[in-house]
Amino acid sequence: MKRPWAGQVEKPPEEHVPRYDPCNPLCPRNTRANGEVNEDYESTFVFDNDFPALQPDAPDPGSDQHPLFRSKAARGVCKVMCFHPWSDVTLPLMKKDEVVKVIDKWSDIVEELGATYAWVQIFENKGATMGCSNPHPHCQVWASSFLPNEPALSDRCQGKYYAAHKEPLLLHYAQQEAERKERVVVDSSHWLVVVPYWATWPYQTLLLPRRHILRITDLTREEREDLADVMKRLLTKYDNLFEVSFPYSMGWHGAPTGPHLKEDYSHWHLHAHYYPPLLRSATVKKFMVGYEMLAQEQRDLTPEQAAEKLRNLPDDHYKTR
Amino acid sequence: MKRPWAGQVEKPPEEHVPRYDPCNPLCPRNTRANGEVNEDYESTFVFDNDFPALQPDAPDPGSDQHPLFRSKAARGVCKVMCFHPWSDVTLPLMKKDEVVKVIDKWSDIVEELGATYAWVQIFENKGATMGCSNPHPHCQVWASSFLPNEPALSDRCQGKYYAAHKEPLLLHYAQQEAERKERVVVDSSHWLVVVPYWATWPYQTLLLPRRHILRITDLTREEREDLADVMKRLLTKYDNLFEVSFPYSMGWHGAPTGPHLKEDYSHWHLHAHYYPPLLRSATVKKFMVGYEMLAQEQRDLTPEQAAEKLRNLPDDHYKTR
Ligand SMILES: O=P(O)(O)O[C@H]1O[C@H](CO)[C@@H](O)[C@H](O)[C@H]1O
Ligand SMILES: O=P(O)(O)O[C@H]1O[C@H](CO)[C@@H](O)[C@H](O)[C@H]1O
Repeated sequence: MKRPWAGQVEKPPEEHVPRYDPCNPLCPRNTRANGEVNEDYESTFVFDNDFPALQPDAPDPGSDQHPLFRSKAARGVCKVMCFHPWSDVTLPLMKKDEVVKVIDKWSDIVEELGATYAWVQIFENKGATMGCSNPHPHCQVWASSFLPNEPALSDRCQGKYYAAHKEPLLLHYAQQEAERKERVVVDSSHWLVVVPYWATWPYQTLLLPRRHILRITDLTREEREDLADVMKRLLTKYDNLFEVSFPYSMGWHGAPTGPHLKEDYSHWHLHAHYYPPLLRSATVKKFMVGYEMLAQEQRDLTPEQAAEKLRNLPDDHYKTR
Repeated sequence: MKRPWAGQVEKPPEEHVPRYDPCNPLCPRNTRANGEVNEDYESTFVFDNDFPALQPDAPDPGSDQHPLFRSKAARGVCKVMCFHPWSDVTLPLMKKDEVVKVIDKWSDIVEELGATYAWVQIFENKGATMGCSNPHPHCQVWASSFLPNEPALSDRCQGKYYAAHKEPLLLHYAQQEAERKERVVVDSSHWLVVVPYWATWPYQTLLLPRRHILRITDLTREEREDLADVMKRLLTKYDNLFEVSFPYSMGWHGAPTGPHLKEDYSHWHLHAHYYPPLLRSATVKKFMVGYEMLAQEQRDLTPEQAAEKLRNLPDDHYKTR
């Protein structure tokens, strides 16, 4: 953290986003690339991604017999979900019940797509630094016929831990962090947000329920209300850190679905990861490059330092002060 | 690849870099942050990183008994290596014997640091997009007392394959790719460059020797000369792709060193990875974000398309035409 920085600086996010932009394909009533017209929606709005990376009828790549050259078809669907009809709000600036509606919609989508697909990945890329060009508040949902690499690894680790300790790894972890406190950023009666012990991104966080929960669909009304509150508090702290609409990628990991719904997944514990790229300021990010790509991720500040900094930030948003 | 791109664009690299800049800490004769004065070097030049991430005397973090909270000290050294006294050249624009001197110096460093350290990571971050702010041609060397994650995984996979097939995975792979040809970018009598079957970055490549070699220190004079030629050809193609000094992170992976020098590492095969961030043009990169971070890396073009494009580019550099 003592290095002078003469490297690349990011453009700070657009400060004046219009509430409605007739050219933005995510706004209500607008026409998208494929000619479809958006509903005049008043809360959340879900539609099929016009440029899907996964398709239900992807062709079979054909199998090679050689052990080093094996492929399988990757099938699925890609959806876009708008959080709000207005382009000039973000989750921390939305009203609590508006955030509850987002959570309810996430749960509905997992229920719907999870009926057939093995994995339903809800993720939000926020900010130009995270490859997102559209300021309208939205996330994506990519559902696949297979367990992608990261959840497959998570499943293996949670499975091993459960076999050895007869307790879900992440539930056990949440209990420990709640006691130790030094990495806690936000807590509430049902949820806990920590900078994980193993964090690699400077202000990375992990959002965990305190009760053992497998999937987002299992959350009670009370837990959803509380989650909306916790998300608003976390994201407000993020925005307050450098007084900028904080960029990140986030996503939910719940127990696998589709054919796995019938199996025992007691080792899983629902959680969300937040990966923000910023390190030093609103415009200087952490570059995960050379050593990180070739050898190992290395961190510029400790999880305890990051947690302390975030924990001490005010809960009211700098824009509404 | 059909998606319209309205997202972030990178600043193209500085076109007019001065050959000598009195303020650049990497130029000959200049004074660095810590007050040391650089040699008036004429070829390569190695010095200790003034802001090392690894230190030989890093304190012990103290061990916790809980299985979820275990840490160990990470000890090592960080060096910087300049490739050339001039700031306005890059490897593809350097003379072949100048590149041979770089390769010789890499080998010397692995020999020297590898005598004690388990892993010697040579890596180059090139271009502002890769977090590098200094245009002077250089790389870094971070040596550690432990096997970092990526080489540890590579070691496990190569070890498993060797146990099952009695042949080194990457040697076998190189032979297969040389026959199949569709992913080959550059080849020579001693080396092969391919866009690997499993590539995730759009123009990612893998550089492999054709003969079974464990470490860079084992390369013959002829293999070094040929390597200089192959590197110049690959990097010229990279620069020609978008007619820009192509950004990337690259690094060498050879068999572990230090205490491992006495062990049998026949399953290893020396190789270098090149990870370039650009996707569509000199200014539009591939964002490894949401889905990639949370679920699985997904590629926007196939390795065969990328290899064909690179293979068909001229071997003479656009700047010297
Ligand atoms: O060592 P540098 O060039 O200051 O720093 C660069 O490379 C390091 C090693 O890959 C990274 O950790 C830094 O994020 C990056 O900016
Ligand atoms: O889907 P988008 O927003 O067009 O694209 C963005 O998210 C995708 C999924 O994480 C990435 O593959 C793209 O590189 C990124 O630019």
